[in-house]
Amino acid sequence: MKKGVMRPGHVQIRVLDLDEAVKHYADLMGLIEMDRDDQGRVYLKGWTEVDKFSVVLREADEAGMDFMAFKVADEATLDSLAQDLRDYGLELTELPAGDLKDCGRRIQFTAPTGHHFELFATKEQTGKWGVSNRNPEAWPRDAKGMKATRFDHCLLYGDDIDGVLDIFTNVLGFQLVEQVVEPDGNKIAIFMACSMKEHDIAFIRQPMKDKFHHASFFLESWEDVLKAGDLLSMTDTPIDIGPTRHGLTHGTTIYFFDPSGNRCEVFSGGDYTYPDHPVITWDAEQLGKAIFYHDRELNERFLTVVT
Amino acid sequence: MKKGVMRPGHVQIRVLDLDEAVKHYADLMGLIEMDRDDQGRVYLKGWTEVDKFSVVLREADEAGMDFMAFKVADEATLDSLAQDLRDYGLELTELPAGDLKDCGRRIQFTAPTGHHFELFATKEQTGKWGVSNRNPEAWPRDAKGMKATRFDHCLLYGDDIDGVLDIFTNVLGFQLVEQVVEPDGNKIAIFMACSMKEHDIAFIRQPMKDKFHHASFFLESWEDVLKAGDLLSMTDTPIDIGPTRHGLTHGTTIYFFDPSGNRCEVFSGGDYTYPDHPVITWDAEQLGKAIFYHDRELNERFLTVVT
Amino acid sequence: MKKGVMRPGHVQIRVLDLDEAVKHYADLMGLIEMDRDDQGRVYLKGWTEVDKFSVVLREADEAGMDFMAFKVADEATLDSLAQDLRDYGLELTELPAGDLKDCGRRIQFTAPTGHHFELFATKEQTGKWGVSNRNPEAWPRDAKGMKATRFDHCLLYGDDIDGVLDIFTNVLGFQLVEQVVEPDGNKIAIFMACSMKEHDIAFIRQPMKDKFHHASFFLESWEDVLKAGDLLSMTDTPIDIGPTRHGLTHGTTIYFFDPSGNRCEVFSGGDYTYPDHPVITWDAEQLGKAIFYHDRELNERFLTVVT
Amino acid sequence: MKKGVMRPGHVQIRVLDLDEAVKHYADLMGLIEMDRDDQGRVYLKGWTEVDKFSVVLREADEAGMDFMAFKVADEATLDSLAQDLRDYGLELTELPAGDLKDCGRRIQFTAPTGHHFELFATKEQTGKWGVSNRNPEAWPRDAKGMKATRFDHCLLYGDDIDGVLDIFTNVLGFQLVEQVVEPDGNKIAIFMACSMKEHDIAFIRQPMKDKFHHASFFLESWEDVLKAGDLLSMTDTPIDIGPTRHGLTHGTTIYFFDPSGNRCEVFSGGDYTYPDHPVITWDAEQLGKAIFYHDRELNERFLTVVT
Repeated sequence: MKKGVMRPGHVQIRVLDLDEAVKHYADLMGLIEMDRDDQGRVYLKGWTEVDKFSVVLREADEAGMDFMAFKVADEATLDSLAQDLRDYGLELTELPAGDLKDCGRRIQFTAPTGHHFELFATKEQTGKWGVSNRNPEAWPRDAKGMKATRFDHCLLYGDDIDGVLDIFTNVLGFQLVEQVVEPDGNKIAIFMACSMKEHDIAFIRQPMKDKFHHASFFLESWEDVLKAGDLLSMTDTPIDIGPTRHGLTHGTTIYFFDPSGNRCEVFSGGDYTYPDHPVITWDAEQLGKAIFYHDRELNERFLTVVT
Repeated sequence: MKKGVMRPGHVQIRVLDLDEAVKHYADLMGLIEMDRDDQGRVYLKGWTEVDKFSVVLREADEAGMDFMAFKVADEATLDSLAQDLRDYGLELTELPAGDLKDCGRRIQFTAPTGHHFELFATKEQTGKWGVSNRNPEAWPRDAKGMKATRFDHCLLYGDDIDGVLDIFTNVLGFQLVEQVVEPDGNKIAIFMACSMKEHDIAFIRQPMKDKFHHASFFLESWEDVLKAGDLLSMTDTPIDIGPTRHGLTHGTTIYFFDPSGNRCEVFSGGDYTYPDHPVITWDAEQLGKAIFYHDRELNERFLTVVT
Repeated sequence: MKKGVMRPGHVQIRVLDLDEAVKHYADLMGLIEMDRDDQGRVYLKGWTEVDKFSVVLREADEAGMDFMAFKVADEATLDSLAQDLRDYGLELTELPAGDLKDCGRRIQFTAPTGHHFELFATKEQTGKWGVSNRNPEAWPRDAKGMKATRFDHCLLYGDDIDGVLDIFTNVLGFQLVEQVVEPDGNKIAIFMACSMKEHDIAFIRQPMKDKFHHASFFLESWEDVLKAGDLLSMTDTPIDIGPTRHGLTHGTTIYFFDPSGNRCEVFSGGDYTYPDHPVITWDAEQLGKAIFYHDRELNERFLTVVT
Repeated sequence: MKKGVMRPGHVQIRVLDLDEAVKHYADLMGLIEMDRDDQGRVYLKGWTEVDKFSVVLREADEAGMDFMAFKVADEATLDSLAQDLRDYGLELTELPAGDLKDCGRRIQFTAPTGHHFELFATKEQTGKWGVSNRNPEAWPRDAKGMKATRFDHCLLYGDDIDGVLDIFTNVLGFQLVEQVVEPDGNKIAIFMACSMKEHDIAFIRQPMKDKFHHASFFLESWEDVLKAGDLLSMTDTPIDIGPTRHGLTHGTTIYFFDPSGNRCEVFSGGDYTYPDHPVITWDAEQLGKAIFYHDRELNERFLTVVT
């Protein structure tokens, strides 16, 4: 949080059928539907999140990610980061408060990989869902399905990940936590954090622009990862891989697809980091193990992305 | 235990290199090396087992299973079951006490699938390894690797599984617990038990004789299954599939290979059964889900067996 | 199952207020309410049980256990065991089919400790709750609260536990699995099984007749024991002790009270046994550790029982 | 990390017998002995920590905590925080580099509760123990006992916790994450963080100066908490309470004592926080539940502290 960027704040995901998507994200994954807006977008969040929402579903003709946003410490920080981004040479779009319901103004820029990122400082705080701020119980009894606790990070595919790394670390104060490098030093994957988490945002180099690999949600335990896998079978939801462990971050994970083909991850555990931690490096020849620690090879689906 | 067959007593596995095999079964899987004999065979067991051994490794030119044995209640039961097997029309071989070190006489027969099975009543009892019979601690601090607790069952491939089913249920008093059936009623997999466990022995129909799919060992928890997977990666041990859950029995599992190509399983949890429980039936068209509950499809390796 | 006794079949528990009791056993513990009878009794079961019910709640002025029953293999076994009990000198009461709804005739006797036990062979089988016998899912999505999977055993307090041991082992074919003994060999606790479980019924010697310590229900994991503890807090349910581990059986456990003061246990894991396993012995001076493995001392409530 | 304080860096604990203490912290808890100095002090760390040490054991006539230190972002931050502390009116002691082996200079101050705190920016980085920075495995195979992963926080007892709160939040940039308050608003417990963790340092108000309640170490799972409890029994180590869950932070925990009477905690899980999260408040009348979520009452030992 060197420059005041706190955490992933929200992601807007395009879905082909809103009702099916809500069934997936709310009934199956356990996100809480918090609101809808007059554009028909649906706002959801994990039960541990204090802000009103972290996932926005928008019905569209094509799946994928519209944008991902980070919440910053306060409005002054937002102004100063906006200036830093402008000074860096990026063109910014300011979206007014209310453009996303109950969210303050957002500063949007396009990363060198073509992805749209936002910063914002203000969003209505509705508190954790189902537990109080006063003498809080351990968890809400009414959570559904996988009981995803929070929107955690995104993994994106794109070409100029060096450009992205430069902006996130040098302008936004992120830390490069883990990387996959080729023998010549070329980075093919970068995991970056603005917190103790091993990744708040990650990129894999692919010769494409603005591709969405997955949005990831945190679970409380490896047992919850198992039950998530069980629920995928019970609901005939397409699975990608897992339960397994990642080499990168060492989190335990399962990948699957929403009805529109967007990949979702639920995961648990994983390493932590601090600003003085050395970068963890994986050799490109060990990419299989870096991604899927047990199988030690990529499945054929791993390179599949949605627009 | 309707007819006095208590449990899987031991399995003799052929390995190409004994030293490598011991490293695999003892250092990695955590079985305890208990003894060796003058033929060079190595005797091992899981730490919770009271008998002296449950796994015998024999160096040979070809991997596979020599035989699997069941322990029966006592010598009188052994005699009466031997008579029942003879009456059924099977030819028996009696192996004298001491043929396996510290094991009593064994009655061996060849099943219609070509597999060699044994019954025995007597084996030296060395007690659980690392814990006492008096004020026992919860587990031994010195167990290694995966800390496999016991030899649990085998899954075998063969042609005449109807013949096998008839012998195990009608002569030996096993119960058919789960089955996979084709629309015409043809059984393609049978899971049989002589206990509360969902399988003490299982068969899948394949047009072959005397094939060994895997020997399976019990772990205490799903977390131990995860750590088993981790250890496979740390030791560069070939993995087949997992961590995952089976549909059949619902146990959580990981499959991998010993240095000779024999498949091993470690698993945890799973359903229980009693003699009055109805048979659980899986439709053949759901075979993928029955075997690998999360992936819902067989991997290409599943049909691979060793001689 | 040497003599054909399969498992604990049901327990009838007296409760002071039926509605509150149902809330406790169904909403909190997750037993399934299956039926009521014209005496107002409520019938429940754990979701993995195939018989129609395993817990019967009867409203009464005083809490405690009316009787506990074991299911035997078949009606012929019931007749032969009844004869064995009579030959032993016990007076039997035969309760007709239908006395408990959808349950066959029951043979009842009073143990030397004053407890009432029953044997029966027939009960309507409704199958596992929420999962099918055909291509069964891993677990039912609608289970509530602690998701108790089955009625597992009872622990009872009484004086003549030697008399009880004699009947259960020599007449009913149970096995003495674990015991706590004083230096002079006097047994102060006995854990007996008719299966691979370490206890289907257990007694602690106390100078009293017909006392009920607890009925116990099985959970799938140590994590479920944690969540059970959480639910006790969320519902302001009086806790006795736990989460912790027992020394005896090494199961992980939590004890708590129903609204009438009956003690309940939910537990997970634990050792297994076979007929040829030596008896596990705990020295009386280690009773604290034998009961509560972590605390290594009895809490003051442990000796409290309901009538 | 608003002001550059990153994390708890080390704690120096007084022990009555060094050899016994090393056995406790290294063999039982699994901390790694990293070095000793010519004063005879022993330096240890958890295996996930990148700095050379986080626990220093000093033999003395009386148990307790000498001081606790926080690592700050860099030497410039150290200077600026030192100035801020001086400006606040605190007297500082500067300890030269090398006073603790392989640790840079430390700025020490005495908090209003009498506790000694330090800040430092530099310490030799030896990297995680047993895993590499290049293609790291998930965990080291040689970790011992409880496998404590890191020194996590301390809980201290003292009188002027309002004074402490003022310094930690307003001077050092910590966040008040959770508190226990009396009806009149008087705080009786404060949990403060400089990170996403719910506590890097915590205080309970007691009419005493400079008292040490416990040092806490992080475990990877609730299952590891169980095994920690098991190890306490196996080693006859005095237990305080647990396994259980805290209300405050909702972490799962076990408290026990080192051979000198210092209380140790190992814990797992627990909530996370961000700078914009509202303070979680527990009412003093719920203190029992706030501390021990399952028992909902303090045990008599809770108020016991060492000097």
